[in-house]
Amino acid sequence: MSQQYPSMLLEKAVGEFAKLPGIGRKTAMRLVLHLLRQENAVVEAFGHSILTLKREVKYCKVCHNISDTETCLICANPNRDASTICVVETVRDVMAVEATQQFKGLYHVLGGVISPMDGIGPSDLQIESLVERVKSGGVKEVILALSSTMEGDTTNFYIFRKLAPFDVKMSVIARGISIGDELEYTDEVTLGRSIVNRTLFTGNI
Amino acid sequence: MSQQYPSMLLEKAVGEFAKLPGIGRKTAMRLVLHLLRQENAVVEAFGHSILTLKREVKYCKVCHNISDTETCLICANPNRDASTICVVETVRDVMAVEATQQFKGLYHVLGGVISPMDGIGPSDLQIESLVERVKSGGVKEVILALSSTMEGDTTNFYIFRKLAPFDVKMSVIARGISIGDELEYTDEVTLGRSIVNRTLFTGNI
Repeated sequence: MSQQYPSMLLEKAVGEFAKLPGIGRKTAMRLVLHLLRQENAVVEAFGHSILTLKREVKYCKVCHNISDTETCLICANPNRDASTICVVETVRDVMAVEATQQFKGLYHVLGGVISPMDGIGPSDLQIESLVERVKSGGVKEVILALSSTMEGDTTNFYIFRKLAPFDVKMSVIARGISIGDELEYTDEVTLGRSIVNRTLFTGNI
Repeated sequence: MSQQYPSMLLEKAVGEFAKLPGIGRKTAMRLVLHLLRQENAVVEAFGHSILTLKREVKYCKVCHNISDTETCLICANPNRDASTICVVETVRDVMAVEATQQFKGLYHVLGGVISPMDGIGPSDLQIESLVERVKSGGVKEVILALSSTMEGDTTNFYIFRKLAPFDVKMSVIARGISIGDELEYTDEVTLGRSIVNRTLFTGNI
């Protein structure tokens, strides 16, 4: 439906919502009109929560997870096993693995996987800082918990080669997760078991 | 999946998004992380567009449509036929009827329909101001373009009785639109035809 907006302010807000992934103009309109029906305080809280998040959010200087502090709560927790690092793509994956309650080590958030098609190379990811963490010692095992896709496998190989010179055990989470599936949509039991049953990484999948 | 958020700021933003209709916590997380990946300026534009809309939006003092000005662009347009008023539920319905390009009169946005189940009575809607518009003269026809639901029908009857004392023709849009359907999901051709083929309202549907 071609639409002429009765208000520039409305059109602008709808346009902003429609930029979000998976939100079309019709849904955007619905969301904006919903917000307009709410109390002022509700809308202020909504708008400010986003502005504040973007302005004040930090990334852990150790693992690059989202954090309110310089070092995230997981890295700063003395009860976590600092000798094991679980390498994941995104913040969502940290939350997914944490939800399984099967992992007591630390994380390393790459920020994605190597994907030449999308123009993402190793230097766009937090791989160098992972190498530095391993190089500085104390790390006994690196668990690769990337998506079971071609890009995930490519990244596994790249990290495997980068860490090969160091005395560190490398493993990948058990391929109990379906080939082609993304980590965050795996159910907790499967994901938890795939961490317990992780296998030694020898360069072969 | 039970989730522990790595950041209070993140949790707050996700919580705010998840309050929107049809947005669960998983989708909210996806949207917030998407925003975090954008440039600062993009996120500022998003946040401010919502705050500005809520703070500055006006409602037309004549038809109650959303507007940037005291009187909306439709009511202020001298080329529109001021003797015909199309009564609709929401701003979205104004846009839906405008998109058909079959109507050249003015609108009256009720703000909903009478729905005792939801605690919405006639006084919660802009019905009194519609009566005032008709009472003040110059209106020859009122077209009722409400949803073809029980609540819509109830509202039609209520307005019919309220306007009965005045010398004004009343019509409902042709029931070409399927019973039980909502106006905004009707295709343009059907909706346009239902306006052209409107029938005299005699108190019977």
